[in-house]
This record gives sequence, C-alpha cells and structure tokens, in this order.
Amino acid sequence: MNVHKFVLPEIIFGNHTISQIGDCCLRLGASNVFIVSDEGILEAGWLDKVVESCEEAGLKYTTFTEITINPKDYEVEKGREVYLESQCDAVIGVGGGSTIDAAKAIALLSTNEGHIRDYEGVDKIKHPLPPQIMVPTTAGSGSEVSPFSIILNTEERKKMTIISKSLIPDIAIVDPETLVTKSTHLTVSTGIDVLTHGIESYISLAATPLTDVHAKNAISLVGKYLRSSVASQYNKEAKTHMAMASLQAGIAFSNAILGAVHAMSHAVGGRYPILHGDINSILLPHVMEYNLLANPEKFADIAYLLGLKDHNISNMEAGKIAIHLVNELIEDIGAPQKLSELQVDDSEIAEMSYTALHDACMLTNPRDVTVSVIEQLFRKAW
Amino acid sequence: MNVHKFVLPEIIFGNHTISQIGDCCLRLGASNVFIVSDEGILEAGWLDKVVESCEEAGLKYTTFTEITINPKDYEVEKGREVYLESQCDAVIGVGGGSTIDAAKAIALLSTNEGHIRDYEGVDKIKHPLPPQIMVPTTAGSGSEVSPFSIILNTEERKKMTIISKSLIPDIAIVDPETLVTKSTHLTVSTGIDVLTHGIESYISLAATPLTDVHAKNAISLVGKYLRSSVASQYNKEAKTHMAMASLQAGIAFSNAILGAVHAMSHAVGGRYPILHGDINSILLPHVMEYNLLANPEKFADIAYLLGLKDHNISNMEAGKIAIHLVNELIEDIGAPQKLSELQVDDSEIAEMSYTALHDACMLTNPRDVTVSVIEQLFRKAW
Repeated sequence: MNVHKFVLPEIIFGNHTISQIGDCCLRLGASNVFIVSDEGILEAGWLDKVVESCEEAGLKYTTFTEITINPKDYEVEKGREVYLESQCDAVIGVGGGSTIDAAKAIALLSTNEGHIRDYEGVDKIKHPLPPQIMVPTTAGSGSEVSPFSIILNTEERKKMTIISKSLIPDIAIVDPETLVTKSTHLTVSTGIDVLTHGIESYISLAATPLTDVHAKNAISLVGKYLRSSVASQYNKEAKTHMAMASLQAGIAFSNAILGAVHAMSHAVGGRYPILHGDINSILLPHVMEYNLLANPEKFADIAYLLGLKDHNISNMEAGKIAIHLVNELIEDIGAPQKLSELQVDDSEIAEMSYTALHDACMLTNPRDVTVSVIEQLFRKAW
Repeated sequence: MNVHKFVLPEIIFGNHTISQIGDCCLRLGASNVFIVSDEGILEAGWLDKVVESCEEAGLKYTTFTEITINPKDYEVEKGREVYLESQCDAVIGVGGGSTIDAAKAIALLSTNEGHIRDYEGVDKIKHPLPPQIMVPTTAGSGSEVSPFSIILNTEERKKMTIISKSLIPDIAIVDPETLVTKSTHLTVSTGIDVLTHGIESYISLAATPLTDVHAKNAISLVGKYLRSSVASQYNKEAKTHMAMASLQAGIAFSNAILGAVHAMSHAVGGRYPILHGDINSILLPHVMEYNLLANPEKFADIAYLLGLKDHNISNMEAGKIAIHLVNELIEDIGAPQKLSELQVDDSEIAEMSYTALHDACMLTNPRDVTVSVIEQLFRKAW
C-alpha cells in the first residue's frame, strides 16, 4: 500500500457566501488585501461584491484585473509589482481557473524573488506565502482547493506547472450564484473540464479511497446536471450541483493528480489561446479509449456513474459504454470534437507530443505512454 | 440551501507512517514535544516507535501516559502541569479516542487558563493552541480529524463536549499497522462506533454532499470488513479497510456532526466506565427505528450500502432492512445488545435522558426528540 496524503483548504460553499470574504480576510489577520480578477468578472459585477464585503470589514484593498485566459508570466510579474507597491498582506482571487492560478502565482512572487519560471516543478518555493482566499466563478478549474498554479511561459510557448503545498489557499469560498453570469460556451467548456478532472483523478495511479469518493460524486453530478446547466443560464439547481461537482473534482485531483488528457491539453494550451476545457473535450474520449486497458473496473464504474443500468456485462464492455456516454454528452452540449475545428496546426504535433510526455500530469496516467502514442492520439483527435 | 463548511487536517494514511511523526513535528516548527498516550499503547510498543522517530528527528520529548478510558478532567489538568514544567512546544497524541481527546484538551489548557470545564460548548477557546499531531490506534473515534474533545466532568458525572476549530489537529497520521495489537473486544466496540459515526453523520441535519460521500464509504467498508477484522487480529487487509472506514467516518461527522445515539451514549458514558462503542452498539438500532421516519431515502441508501440488492421495494421497506442488517452485524460480532448487560442502573434513566436532550449532538438529530422519547428509547434498550 502506498502512503495516501490528503490536504485541503477550509471550504465554505453556498449561495451568497461571496459576501463572507471580508470576514474571512480578518480571520486570517489581513488588513490590506490584493484582489486579483479579470475584466469579465468586473463586468458581471462580482468584483463589486467582493470590494463591498472588504469595505464592510474595514479592510484596505487594491484591485488588479490584468489577467487573461491561460495567464501569462508577464501578467503575474506585473501583479507582483503592484502588490508590493500597495504593501498588501493577503491575496484574494475571484474568477475562473486562469485568474485563481494567477492570484496564487502573485502570492508566490510577493515573498519569493526571481522570475515565475524559477518555480516550475515540485516544491521549489522557499518562503511562506501571504494568506490566500479564492472564489471560483466558473465551476471548472478546481484551483481554489489545489496545490497547482499553471502559468504560461510566453517565451517558450509552454504552460508551466508549479506544484507546492504553499499554493493550497487558506480558504476556498464557492458561491454557486456566481455561475448565472457565465456564457453558454464557458459553461460547456468548464463543465467538460470538471468531467475530465473527475475521470482522470479516478483512474490516476495516485488515486486513493479518499479521492475516489469525491471523483465519483463529481462524475455522477456532471452526468446528471451538465446538460440542464448548459440549457439554461438561470437554472440555479443545476448550477449548484455543477459548483459542487467542480469542487469535488478539484478535491480529487488536488490529491490524486491527473493524466494524459491534461498533459496533452497543457501542451496545446501553451501554444494556442484556446479554452482549456475545449481542448479537453476533444482529447478526453481518445485518451479514455487508450487508457481503458489499464483499469477496466474503474472504467465500468464510470459508465454506471454516468447512467448505465445493465450489470450483466463485463467490465470491458461497460468501460466501452463509458466512452460512448462521454461522447454522447460532448455531442449533446455542443462541445468541440476535433482539434482542426480550433485551428490548431498539425505541423506542431511532434513538438507538442514531446512537451506532453514531460508534463507532470503524465506521471500518474494509468497506462504507459510514449511520444509516438501521444502523436497517434493527437492525430486521432484532429 | 444552507452554507456548507468543511475543514480537515492534513492526513497521512498508510502502513509504517507512524515513523514519519518526527519529521512532521519538525515541519510544524516543534523542538520539544509532549507525547500523550496510555498504558495499553506503551505495552503494545507503539509509544516506543513514536519516541524513536522523535529521537531520530533530534527532538526533545516528554511522555505522559496517565490517561484512562473516558478521560477525566483531573487527568488533562495534570497533563497541563507536566507540559508546562517540561516547556514543550507541541502535542502528539497516540492512542484511541480517549487519549487523543485528552491530548487535545492538554493542548488547549497549555495556552488557555482556568479549568477544562470553562471550555465546554462551542468556540470558548481564546488563545491559539500549540501544533497538534494525532495518531489513532483503534480505528474508532475519528478524533484525529475532528474539532471535538470529550472530557469527563468527574464532579457532575457528565461528559463535556468541547467544540472548536482550534481542536482540529494540524496533522493526522493513520497507520493501519497499529491495529494488529487491538483486543477483539476493542475491535468490536470501536468498529460499531465507526458504523454509528457513518450512519449518524449521513442522516444528520447538517449533512452535505461533501460529508455524504465519506459517510457512505465508511458505512460500506464497515459492512464489508468489520466481520473479518473481528475474526482475525492479523488480517491486515481488513484492518486497513477499517482504518480507512474510521478516518472517513471521522471526516464526515467532523463536518456534519452526529445525532441521538451519541447524545444518549455520552449521558451513559458520563456515569459508567463503559466503552463508548459498547453503548452505541446497544442504542443504535433503537434510535435508527425512531429516526427512520425522518429520512426514508437515506435509510434505504444505508441498506444498499450494507448489501441489500433488491431495488424493487419502497424506501421505507429498505430502511427497515437497514435496521435489520445493523442488528445482524451486531449479533454476528457479539457486540452488546442490552444496557442491563452492562450493569447500568435503570433508576438513572430520567437524569440521563435530561442530560442527553441537552447534548450538542442532539441538535443535528433528524427527528425531533423530547425527554420522554429518550426515556422510551433507553427503556427499549434495557
């Protein structure tokens, strides 16, 4: 038996919990907070809610909204400058995975010298970080509970994975109300990301009984509520279940890590400004087909979690149905199915495959992978 | 929707993880640790393992083993004296729930003045506690992850429940190897305690999707492995699953709290030196019968988790089968079934019922309860 490690931030989940952020900051000893967000959240009015709560708590604050999707090294380095100038003592991130990853990277740089590149990999952080409170607004990334920050190295066109316990926020505030301002495209894309987190962490080589329970619940909730969440921007029941699915998938992959879909997706996302969930949607069924051999029993479980009723079939048969059910969901909600649709250039396959092979997420993929396997998977997904 | 809060310590689970305790202490900044344990753990050799790991890490240490089952106010106050004399800066607890609860209470008293009685109830602790690392050795209490400490008020013959986030340890080290030295009686008693934690937290009014997944897995693991764990002291597979069941039940009830079984059990345990799990074993089926009305759907789930296959029956029918399956398990492993077996005096029913009604655990019981209901339940259990 391997040793299972399991770490989580304090979690607060529920409608209107965004207004608890000021009190949470006080509880962590903050007096002057740095609020990282993006233009979309500003327009949707959520940043105002956060600022209001901070003002009510008597906190000073500085807002920083210069974050874009697939957040860039120069953005977080600019964030550090503003943080230090403002003499802040805590970091709040409000937004999707990109914004939260950027907020964590700014927290890192606020107490650790050098370039964000210097911290790529596992456990490179030397000095303690300021308190971090994260408020996800997309039901997708799970970054609010994870020890990861994914930042784009713009020089090398490569997504860097930074992993450290110091990047686990102190408090994650998950307010499903924030999801009603999401576009349909974002609901589709982040929903498939949640499914991918659930599936990859469930079949990961580092999965444990503690992560499995959350991964399974996340898969089941996506199967039940992603369609209705895509169908209506205002279906609050569906949004609440998707927020819980995202949180539980985040808890699972934070402790069980992921697999080949994410490794390959990071390689594509490093080169093209495409939503992470859109790339996952294209890759997931092909990688599942390849990985089925590694764990037919868990693939069968996935099929039952997604609605299969027939228990009189073999695990391999049920596992194939799991792939079929994932494809059906992707089709139903209109998620992308081919990389060529997204204008990805196939002359980059060799380089992207090499990058994917060396991504930290590949280490826990349940089936052995080579560069040529990855190339074949990319070609199938074209 | 209520706000769901979820907090956990860092968890390390696996065989031989007890030898990581020294490193964990260093990581938390400790240099001189106070090791709380009991005579049984000393005899079984586990205290030596802990001391060895602390010595290897270059830590100073003081051991304190004057803890008995249903730990007493004067024991933890004595512990504080020794802690302060020894100028320790961290607390380790190694043992069953009694020992871990006592270790937490000593940590509390080391930085907070007055009598342990002064801290009964919710959030009465004023000053931060020293780092706490807990190593459970019984697969029962779940105290290694909980915000509770239950201490006996010897003057009033009453178990006091102390609840505070400060009592959540920093690190829980769960080493299933430690279970092979448990007596059969203790395996039976703590195993039923785990089942009770799983069931009461699952049907609790404060249950959430985050706690439900752990409660369900705990119930299912007890159903599958408690019999074989009782059958053989050396069945390591069964012990590992029971250690995981105990941990997951602990995670569930730490965040969803418990119900009438625990409220009533605390009232009995305050008056008689009986193992907590033995009292739960007697009360659980009767309280389940009473609570069934409150949540037939979740009771039906419990039946399926315990092995029921027939899905063509109503939730009420399945819920009754859940009670039958719990009774069957209790009979199979020879757990106690009547309070009179344990020499409890029935003249104390009225007073114990009054005490139980005011126990913190009663607040989350899914069905309304009055003193006369509790009296009737006690009489049924005689």
